[in-house]
Amino acid sequence: MPQLLSPAQLRQRIRSGLYTGHTSGLAQGYVQCNLTILPADWAGDFLRFCQLNPRPCPLIAMANSPGDISLPSLGDIDIRSDVSSYRIFRHGQLEDEVADIRSLWRDDLVTFALGCSFSFEEALLADGLDVRNVSEGVNVPMYRSNIPCQSAGDFAGNMVVSMRPFKAADAIRAIQICTRFPSVHGAPIHFGDPRIIGIKDLEQPDYGDPVSIKQEEVPVFWACGVTPQVALEKARPPFAITHSPGCMLVTDLRNSQLAIM
Amino acid sequence: MPQLLSPAQLRQRIRSGLYTGHTSGLAQGYVQCNLTILPADWAGDFLRFCQLNPRPCPLIAMANSPGDISLPSLGDIDIRSDVSSYRIFRHGQLEDEVADIRSLWRDDLVTFALGCSFSFEEALLADGLDVRNVSEGVNVPMYRSNIPCQSAGDFAGNMVVSMRPFKAADAIRAIQICTRFPSVHGAPIHFGDPRIIGIKDLEQPDYGDPVSIKQEEVPVFWACGVTPQVALEKARPPFAITHSPGCMLVTDLRNSQLAIM
Repeated sequence: MPQLLSPAQLRQRIRSGLYTGHTSGLAQGYVQCNLTILPADWAGDFLRFCQLNPRPCPLIAMANSPGDISLPSLGDIDIRSDVSSYRIFRHGQLEDEVADIRSLWRDDLVTFALGCSFSFEEALLADGLDVRNVSEGVNVPMYRSNIPCQSAGDFAGNMVVSMRPFKAADAIRAIQICTRFPSVHGAPIHFGDPRIIGIKDLEQPDYGDPVSIKQEEVPVFWACGVTPQVALEKARPPFAITHSPGCMLVTDLRNSQLAIM
Repeated sequence: MPQLLSPAQLRQRIRSGLYTGHTSGLAQGYVQCNLTILPADWAGDFLRFCQLNPRPCPLIAMANSPGDISLPSLGDIDIRSDVSSYRIFRHGQLEDEVADIRSLWRDDLVTFALGCSFSFEEALLADGLDVRNVSEGVNVPMYRSNIPCQSAGDFAGNMVVSMRPFKAADAIRAIQICTRFPSVHGAPIHFGDPRIIGIKDLEQPDYGDPVSIKQEEVPVFWACGVTPQVALEKARPPFAITHSPGCMLVTDLRNSQLAIM
């Protein structure tokens, strides 16, 4: 019953290879993070990219130094083994998907942990809102927008956005709730006509699955944590590691601790 | 130059009959209030109506007892003379408009001061947003919605809403800003398709003036302080006094003091 495990217990199972699945719905109440690991000579530009684009790339923690496998502010973490599935990129191309990166670890690798929409979705659900991708049991639909990110070195590209439909009154409530959580993408960046931000067809997401939009509902768009992956593909660093989609780094931080008020 | 007067100085001019005009744009930075004065045997139901409908009827202050002409929490106020124009209602019908109610004052009258949109409009303008009714120099358009208020005694009716158009990103910002000011109507209650809240034609407001809606803008709707006047017309108390539209009670309270965060 991984649902009932604490974050530390869940990480222990993942670390020992006993759990290799998705982390959605597990360790409820606790922050899960997007993961990016880069060689030190690329880390400075990536850090600056996050600083310049805090809505899609909200940095929650980073390693103290190159080679450091711990993230003490997030828990007793060995970043080489505590994520259930990793993606290995070489020159911007996905090369492999592995359950453990101990054999790939290098002294120059720098770890970044970024906020994830699971945290604000939990707050929306707790308020009684219908989060469509959750109620329909699919991945949230994500789209490449025409909103440019600020570039940092070779890291560049447009913002990827996630979409959740709401009636206007619920959208207003969602804006209020998400405003409290700037480190997990914060308030939406757009609602209504998707063409205004360069999206042609909501039924054809670039990532994830389409969801139904009911009568009187409008699509509401949030900055999305897939944005740094697009920037990674553009920058083409010789080596990079991320989590696999849905297989997040589970932390000891409570979602409520991210609320700014 | 009434623009440069403090609230106390402006009230003094109004009290002595030297200023009889609108108060929009005067004593900037300070809270202006909607005014309702009712006989004591109607005041209990009206107070309950405000408590049940805080979005359109946000109560900022009320007299300590029937006949009391002061509102000490709002400044050194004589409510019989410190508003530039009053409306006199008998049995729900507008009967007269006067600059002073000293001759009409009775020992059983109870004063209510309710929040007004001037406060949040100032916060929106200070953030650089284009408040269309301000930039076009007209009264905000107001509409009778189909959103029912909670009844209290004979006080009942649908909510009146004001409308300001924004692009989606600015609307999201406006929602964030107005959320900080629950005592001046707070966050919008709707945006987008006006028919969803029973409004057929935005170019035909029930009160105020139409404003232009530009490309990529959506109408955003706030609960409006005209709502209690509609409830007053429904309840038909034998006697009631309100401010005249645009001639608000100017207080010593700063708008920033209304911010909950």
